[in-house]
Amino acid sequence: MDDKITTITDLKNFVEDFVQERHWSQFHNAKNLSMALSIEAGELMDIFKWNTNEECERMMSEIKTRQEATDEIADVMIYALAFANRNDINIADAIDQKMIKNREKYPADKFKGHF
Amino acid sequence: MDDKITTITDLKNFVEDFVQERHWSQFHNAKNLSMALSIEAGELMDIFKWNTNEECERMMSEIKTRQEATDEIADVMIYALAFANRNDINIADAIDQKMIKNREKYPADKFKGHF
Amino acid sequence: MDDKITTITDLKNFVEDFVQERHWSQFHNAKNLSMALSIEAGELMDIFKWNTNEECERMMSEIKTRQEATDEIADVMIYALAFANRNDINIADAIDQKMIKNREKYPADKFKGHF
Amino acid sequence: MDDKITTITDLKNFVEDFVQERHWSQFHNAKNLSMALSIEAGELMDIFKWNTNEECERMMSEIKTRQEATDEIADVMIYALAFANRNDINIADAIDQKMIKNREKYPADKFKGHF
Repeated sequence: MDDKITTITDLKNFVEDFVQERHWSQFHNAKNLSMALSIEAGELMDIFKWNTNEECERMMSEIKTRQEATDEIADVMIYALAFANRNDINIADAIDQKMIKNREKYPADKFKGHF
Repeated sequence: MDDKITTITDLKNFVEDFVQERHWSQFHNAKNLSMALSIEAGELMDIFKWNTNEECERMMSEIKTRQEATDEIADVMIYALAFANRNDINIADAIDQKMIKNREKYPADKFKGHF
Repeated sequence: MDDKITTITDLKNFVEDFVQERHWSQFHNAKNLSMALSIEAGELMDIFKWNTNEECERMMSEIKTRQEATDEIADVMIYALAFANRNDINIADAIDQKMIKNREKYPADKFKGHF
Repeated sequence: MDDKITTITDLKNFVEDFVQERHWSQFHNAKNLSMALSIEAGELMDIFKWNTNEECERMMSEIKTRQEATDEIADVMIYALAFANRNDINIADAIDQKMIKNREKYPADKFKGHF
């Protein structure tokens, strides 16, 4: 699978099939999935917690750390997709709408290089 | 934008343009982005923390809560995409590979309806 | 050690000795410790994520789950104490001051049984 | 209130009184409190996410950031104490026991200055 040709719906279906095959949708309510998402984000941070920003950059060029981080970002995405599946959220539209708000909050000409 | 026709690369480019316009890639190292991702996941949980699973389901059918949750899941996705952009991760492939591990860890015939 | 006679300073010193013996204070800056704290909170949540509130209550009366949760809450406390040590924060005073704000925000007569 | 003379039981009672006055113990099950704890840890991280370790150190010497961080660490402690109250956990003992495990896992002579 490749990002260039894989749509969000492709990934949503991929995750949904896995969930359905195990009859796990009973556990996939909004509350539980928000927790699962947060826990996986914590596992991603766990890779970087004691290192400087520069060390973390270097670590991401090592195969082992890179694979760990890739697995964790996959887990984050899987639960975000599962949350969208269960709650019928159009992710592309959600990002589009949120970015409109972000552009208003952070106009490019006023927030260049800082917050 | 719609999940049916939007590819991951479309979304990656959408996020990358926003970051580039503000010269923010200097802040987008692996450590910082993992924190930003976790913080947004926390904000999603904040909507549900004091409610039962059932109440959370009902809340997701109310426009206001639904919009809040949709904005938060968008933020989670935006930082996951930014993490993938900065670290050159193919998300669709990462999910594909992680799902292979998940299927081995949780065979459908042994984990039906439970963990 | 017992909560009835153990002061916050006792616990702060207990944690500080452990850190000093390993020369780990170099890693204990505010940013890193906030991440460590969040990661441990995620591990506590991990125990409960797929269960209903009622199931979680029952689980906490089982020795195994109870021990896991006790270890995780200890980890959370250890990093909160380490954060206070490194940044010279008086925890009892911080709680006292925060509770004044909480009482103003949530007057008891207006928030009885709800938020 | 001062860390030198304030016991954990003092703080537990302080938090418990606040909860009882609002009849909020009904919301304080293990699952919900683990979420609340994680959310507050996320708010603490939010102060530091885009800054380097060194900048975060400097920020903690500014009154405004220092007060924000102090309030967030207080919130983390309040929910950890509430979790211990609801689940009858002796925090000092929990830390003592966890530190025994930590000393075995990280002997001081083998982990001096690194992990």
